[in-house]
Amino acid sequence: MKEIGIGLLGFGTVGAGVVDGLRRNGEMLAARLGVKPVLVGVADLDLDTDRGVPLDGDILTDNAESVVDDPRVQVVVELIGGTGAAKSLVKRALDQGKPVVTANKHLLAEHGAEIFALAAKKEADIYFGASVGGGIPIIRALRDGLIANHIDSIYAILNGTCNYILTRMEAEGLSFDHVLKEAQEAGYAEADPGLDIDGLDTAHKAVLLAYLAYGFPVPMDAVHVEGIRGLAETDIEYARDLGYRIKLLAVIRRSEDGVEVGVHPSLVPAEHVLASVSGVYNAVMVYGDMVGQTLYYGRGAGREPTASTVLGDIADAARNLGADLPRSASVSSSSRGVEIRKAGEIETRYYLRLSLLDKPGVLARIAGALGENGISIASVLQKEPAKGEYVPVVVVTHRGHEKAFASALEQIDSMDIVGGPTARLRIEDQA
Amino acid sequence: MKEIGIGLLGFGTVGAGVVDGLRRNGEMLAARLGVKPVLVGVADLDLDTDRGVPLDGDILTDNAESVVDDPRVQVVVELIGGTGAAKSLVKRALDQGKPVVTANKHLLAEHGAEIFALAAKKEADIYFGASVGGGIPIIRALRDGLIANHIDSIYAILNGTCNYILTRMEAEGLSFDHVLKEAQEAGYAEADPGLDIDGLDTAHKAVLLAYLAYGFPVPMDAVHVEGIRGLAETDIEYARDLGYRIKLLAVIRRSEDGVEVGVHPSLVPAEHVLASVSGVYNAVMVYGDMVGQTLYYGRGAGREPTASTVLGDIADAARNLGADLPRSASVSSSSRGVEIRKAGEIETRYYLRLSLLDKPGVLARIAGALGENGISIASVLQKEPAKGEYVPVVVVTHRGHEKAFASALEQIDSMDIVGGPTARLRIEDQA
Repeated sequence: MKEIGIGLLGFGTVGAGVVDGLRRNGEMLAARLGVKPVLVGVADLDLDTDRGVPLDGDILTDNAESVVDDPRVQVVVELIGGTGAAKSLVKRALDQGKPVVTANKHLLAEHGAEIFALAAKKEADIYFGASVGGGIPIIRALRDGLIANHIDSIYAILNGTCNYILTRMEAEGLSFDHVLKEAQEAGYAEADPGLDIDGLDTAHKAVLLAYLAYGFPVPMDAVHVEGIRGLAETDIEYARDLGYRIKLLAVIRRSEDGVEVGVHPSLVPAEHVLASVSGVYNAVMVYGDMVGQTLYYGRGAGREPTASTVLGDIADAARNLGADLPRSASVSSSSRGVEIRKAGEIETRYYLRLSLLDKPGVLARIAGALGENGISIASVLQKEPAKGEYVPVVVVTHRGHEKAFASALEQIDSMDIVGGPTARLRIEDQA
Repeated sequence: MKEIGIGLLGFGTVGAGVVDGLRRNGEMLAARLGVKPVLVGVADLDLDTDRGVPLDGDILTDNAESVVDDPRVQVVVELIGGTGAAKSLVKRALDQGKPVVTANKHLLAEHGAEIFALAAKKEADIYFGASVGGGIPIIRALRDGLIANHIDSIYAILNGTCNYILTRMEAEGLSFDHVLKEAQEAGYAEADPGLDIDGLDTAHKAVLLAYLAYGFPVPMDAVHVEGIRGLAETDIEYARDLGYRIKLLAVIRRSEDGVEVGVHPSLVPAEHVLASVSGVYNAVMVYGDMVGQTLYYGRGAGREPTASTVLGDIADAARNLGADLPRSASVSSSSRGVEIRKAGEIETRYYLRLSLLDKPGVLARIAGALGENGISIASVLQKEPAKGEYVPVVVVTHRGHEKAFASALEQIDSMDIVGGPTARLRIEDQA
């Protein structure tokens, strides 16, 4: 059987998963594929740590360039991560016309325009299935399965750490800080969890989904990002009383005015499939103009699921090495002229939790401030008064512009009847 | 741009959807793909009915062979259905080495061995994404995305009519007959609904999923099929009390002894994602040895979703026309020597609803009969006595062999303390 030489850059967790997967399932993969991927070089700065998976032969080196340049290497797999060495090595491979498989969402979200342009120029394909959704074949679904669809919108849970924290907060009534600390101790959250809980990791992935859906790179600074740090358990509780669950959602939507990409903790109706996605699982809901609503669900991270997708991309790269049509042709601008929509122009419904003096006429002033900004109230939930002089009041609004809300809340939070800043969460009930 | 000639056989609902999709989204598809699929011939016995979508030029004929044989036709799309004309036309196309796109699960489930062998011999690819799950790109996920995985099991809701009926029965406490009648009036169920409600349609799709997962055609007579006809609303109610929902599941499982393929109404834990799949939606849960649990969800039927997948397959066929590697190579026997497992050997848990005399010692006799057959009881649910002398008692068992249950139930149903046949449903809590 014809062999395809693979060069692996980065022998960390996922890299070791790829090596192990090739050892265990490589024969089956080759039988299904018709060609046999063979590891011919592995690069990592750490030459000593035992990864628990043996390499065939003396193929580990700390010289990554030599692996990229090795003429036997026909497909380069970048699993280093970050935007430093990874960037120059990916470019080096593409420059030589070698297809690249990468799980590096950070690199592609920040430097996608440059890298995709280089890949197109050199007619070298770049496969990034493992950069979004770990083991979920969502990139492939968007690129191939839904190729005949204009993508109307995508709603996605893309960060397992956040979803794990939100699931436990809801199920056990625990505080954000408490669950984060436990998650860190259990290894589900990083010691420095900012990339996850502040929404940046989700935003990187959202940018890549938008790229596949609309064919152009959305700059990170056009993405409105809010994470879940400090989300109050009381909001999770009120949301549940109202028939919702809170999820950190990436939202990618097309309207007549353009494309919106945002990341926000959002209220999702409890009966919606996305609401049933719990723990470290990820899910991506895609609305296409022909297919309607589809959803893809699975483990969004982890050694084995991510390696599964990397191997799927290696298979694609190996299969396409002999083909006439470069695979990257399938990501072309399907929406030329589509504009990025600014956050202030976006219409949405909101959940507001206000801290109000418990006396007559107070709610009328709130309704007045919202009304002045063109926002009408859908429902009000007032529980028993708290111990102090202020009482929490939850207001659910109809749709309004984001900047109208910002203006109304500025007005409200400066009122003397308001005891503290208003908690504000989006309601995504059109997902 | 290079053009690829498409011949369409069958200008019915889905056929019209494909024509319409090409008209509306064909340019975008071509831009993404790098080649342009062009309809050069359409065959249907009905030349008169207005399908509401215009054809470019005088390309409609009632001579399907002439479309297959037309040298401009490079990809043949079979949307006739059934196992008559469709079979000979698919073979005619493959014989000429032309790739075939089909949505015909019935044909492939019944004659897959013959057709796949012919495709392999002629090195012509066969694409059948739309035959399972309508708009859900599940065939593609199994074939490509999860290519590096041994598939441990698949649990799937594959028939929208059944899921619609079950959803309404549960939500509204209605009887099977009542919902079926309404579904027929609303066009959600066929006038002759047997293929759907007796599980055969689901079984056809299960056979195709098993083929992709294990690389060999499972004969239909090795598939244990039970439908939902006559399912009692009382069982849906009891199941809910026990924390389950009832779904018609296709179950494909591999164990050391072989592969099991079955279709059964099953109790699924209410918190499981599959339980949240409601109405006409389909979902396929796939467990792979690397990726773990993944799920694919969407509309399992209908003009537009099915046409979306057919167009995705046309795109694949068009892309691969120039390639060296036939795509069908990816379905090869990954599990040579795997045996089909007989139904009697399968272990599962059961929900039993017995009609018992309301007097002491009765339950002990039931437990005795189960115990003699090696089955132990996990829990018993007894509600208030009914009006008559018999009372419904629900028994949930631990795992046991199917034939042990059959033997125990034969014994039980002949006891004088039993007022009628025992209702028996599988519990799939490992899904």
